[in-house]
Amino acid sequence: MARIDRLPRNEDGIAAALAELKATFGERLQTGQAIRDQHAHTTTWVANQAPDAVAFPRTTEEVAAIVRSCAAHRVPVIPFGTGTSLEGHVNAPAGGICLSTRDMTDVIAVNEADLDCTIQPGITRKALNEHLRATGLFFPIDPGADASLGGMAATRASGTNAVRYGTMKDNVLGLTAVMADGRVIHTGGRARKSSAGYDLTRLLVGSEGTLGIITEITLRLQGIPEAMSSATCSFPTVAAACEAVIATIQMGVPVARIELLDALQVRAVNAYSKLTLPESPLLLLEFHGTEAGVAEQAETFGEIAADAGGTEFTWTTSPEERTKLWQARHDSYWASLALDPTRKGISTDVCVPISRLAECVTAAQARTQELGITAPVVGHVGDGNFHVLLLVDPESPEETAKADDFTGWLADLAISMGGTCTGEHGIGQGKRAYLRREHGDAVDDMVAIKRALDPDGILNPGKIL
Amino acid sequence: MARIDRLPRNEDGIAAALAELKATFGERLQTGQAIRDQHAHTTTWVANQAPDAVAFPRTTEEVAAIVRSCAAHRVPVIPFGTGTSLEGHVNAPAGGICLSTRDMTDVIAVNEADLDCTIQPGITRKALNEHLRATGLFFPIDPGADASLGGMAATRASGTNAVRYGTMKDNVLGLTAVMADGRVIHTGGRARKSSAGYDLTRLLVGSEGTLGIITEITLRLQGIPEAMSSATCSFPTVAAACEAVIATIQMGVPVARIELLDALQVRAVNAYSKLTLPESPLLLLEFHGTEAGVAEQAETFGEIAADAGGTEFTWTTSPEERTKLWQARHDSYWASLALDPTRKGISTDVCVPISRLAECVTAAQARTQELGITAPVVGHVGDGNFHVLLLVDPESPEETAKADDFTGWLADLAISMGGTCTGEHGIGQGKRAYLRREHGDAVDDMVAIKRALDPDGILNPGKIL
Repeated sequence: MARIDRLPRNEDGIAAALAELKATFGERLQTGQAIRDQHAHTTTWVANQAPDAVAFPRTTEEVAAIVRSCAAHRVPVIPFGTGTSLEGHVNAPAGGICLSTRDMTDVIAVNEADLDCTIQPGITRKALNEHLRATGLFFPIDPGADASLGGMAATRASGTNAVRYGTMKDNVLGLTAVMADGRVIHTGGRARKSSAGYDLTRLLVGSEGTLGIITEITLRLQGIPEAMSSATCSFPTVAAACEAVIATIQMGVPVARIELLDALQVRAVNAYSKLTLPESPLLLLEFHGTEAGVAEQAETFGEIAADAGGTEFTWTTSPEERTKLWQARHDSYWASLALDPTRKGISTDVCVPISRLAECVTAAQARTQELGITAPVVGHVGDGNFHVLLLVDPESPEETAKADDFTGWLADLAISMGGTCTGEHGIGQGKRAYLRREHGDAVDDMVAIKRALDPDGILNPGKIL
Repeated sequence: MARIDRLPRNEDGIAAALAELKATFGERLQTGQAIRDQHAHTTTWVANQAPDAVAFPRTTEEVAAIVRSCAAHRVPVIPFGTGTSLEGHVNAPAGGICLSTRDMTDVIAVNEADLDCTIQPGITRKALNEHLRATGLFFPIDPGADASLGGMAATRASGTNAVRYGTMKDNVLGLTAVMADGRVIHTGGRARKSSAGYDLTRLLVGSEGTLGIITEITLRLQGIPEAMSSATCSFPTVAAACEAVIATIQMGVPVARIELLDALQVRAVNAYSKLTLPESPLLLLEFHGTEAGVAEQAETFGEIAADAGGTEFTWTTSPEERTKLWQARHDSYWASLALDPTRKGISTDVCVPISRLAECVTAAQARTQELGITAPVVGHVGDGNFHVLLLVDPESPEETAKADDFTGWLADLAISMGGTCTGEHGIGQGKRAYLRREHGDAVDDMVAIKRALDPDGILNPGKIL
């Protein structure tokens, strides 16, 4: 398990802030060890660094009160949504107050005519879509976890249908945020576009709680499509599958989802879900549109896939059949872990230009084989983003060192191809080493912005920079 | 004509920088009055404030050399593309060096498989599309002018098809920029998405040359659609037309363009282009997709339009017919000016949630009538963005005061509706007064970022903030 360096603690400040906040928040400030541990990093590869207390504010004004108290005493504030981030984003390396959005789950407004809504940050994507059900609208971004929208905005998350609907950066219209000095600001608005000043919305999205704490979000929504169709197709090689992906995107087929499972991942799914898919690279697709449109899209893809050497192409609009086709994708994480129950999974997250995708995936597969790591691959390949799930024993220094080496090697490879070390998981603590490799001196400008907006460094210290 | 306050000049610094740059750039540094005047604001309502010299660099390294010299002597640097901005963006209120991208028009790379390209900032959108013609790809953003891509990125420009393809913020993947101290940084990359650190790409896009000077741009491209269809439909009222727009967007019809001309604008076009369109509000649409898809989209819109009271609905896929249908839109600016040849046009640029669009347009029409200003309206109504073209005599203090009052009143109205004072033109000098009305205390954070990245304030001073 990777132990990230702790940072110096401001003991007096922490004690003073705790006393102040306890007086204000009472039972809504918790200091028990178990709850503190639960509110720091709980996934496998980064070790847990608990905060000193967990606060449960309900409103922007309460968040501002917490930040003002922490600012006065120079105490770290670490925002927490559902704790499903993967890179130590919610750890407290210098202690401080975890600010949980558990009790900030209101849907403040849904504007059906404008296809937007304003929410508090603690509501999860599934809860929001449940709330929207009667409106005929939905929010499309779907990371693997049922994450909070605040966490998704803070990490610039995406998921399986970013190829059509974009990432959080494309779907946040505006934010309310509490800045490091406790001021409340509103960025963006409800207009579809604006050229008015610096784009603070996009600056806060992906800033992982280090520049401001998001307390309200205005999101773009989409109409639930009239029809959906799903398709699957097997390919002899990853390269052949990627060739079909490139042709599909180039022809402008508006795919909603286009996902790759490599042969090992398909084998894992077959074993786990008792399926009999050909154990070779598989593409799974989803199309959104009109009845005629989704049929046309599926058929066009079928022709492209055949040209690229695809076999066993099948498509359907039946909801039951669609669910069955997607079962392989939905089960992939658990199926992968079942390949070796003695180990846990560490996920990589590179994203490259799609012309380099086959080369990058193939090189990654060769490297994990060399290293003797079982490592199935799934990818949001319409974006060039893929995850290698490294199955390692988190208590084995040898295996975690190998995983660490592999992750760094893959980040460098992706960056050398014009890509990124993280397509959707974020930097947190875990990928800080790669930030300068990717962005070079631009990191100095990120540091300058951080210092300008949070001169005492109280907002989620030890993350990103 | 609005005279914007000049700022203090650093005469010694300007003289020193000019001497240094003259030695390096020779004839590529011009100081004649005519060329200096041409490189400051040349549209009607903001008065011209010429720079002290115009430099014509060819490379990022030459831009960096200019900025280093100006930084050493604390001299303003004002980037200049084609000079088609509307709000005084290229004025030099404190003098300084205009940095023209006239000689930076290379297409550095086109990656057909990845649907992206990397260009120098001086190439115009039409020249880029001409260059791309053989590839089957195109760049969709189309402001009225044949602007440079650098200027479009700097002002977060859009145009008629943002409703489908987004604005510059959505179509810039990465940038090379020279910062205020002369350092060269690279932001973003060629991956379709990234969660690696602060989004400096989106921070620079729309920063109007005040945070860094863009010297290379990596853009997303689109495949030229297999088919296009166009449609027009007249409506009894602006409200009825907007109702059709809302229904079209809600149903998820992927319109590429949906433009509104109000009755006065249609009358102007009829007179100018000898057409006989019904003189009532008109929607013009364009659909991109497959042959079957664009037919389906046009027919769906026809049904929606009929429900909203639309008449004289017509659609076609014939290129000649399409051009004829779009003639009204293409001629609208010149047709408007022809309504009163004694006056010039000042364009407003508010953008509101589409549910408020009818109310906002109708209020604007009533107000211009009250003020006795002839003012046709065109709008990119799928985004909620519209332009009122105020026909006024720029030499009449009474008329320009009325125009100024109207612009401020309309900005306030749009902001009160959750909208913005500028959908696509930017702040420049002309809209600085509205920035705090729209963004409140968030402007303080913009100022903090400006100070952090450009502590001496040499990059395009007097703009935005």
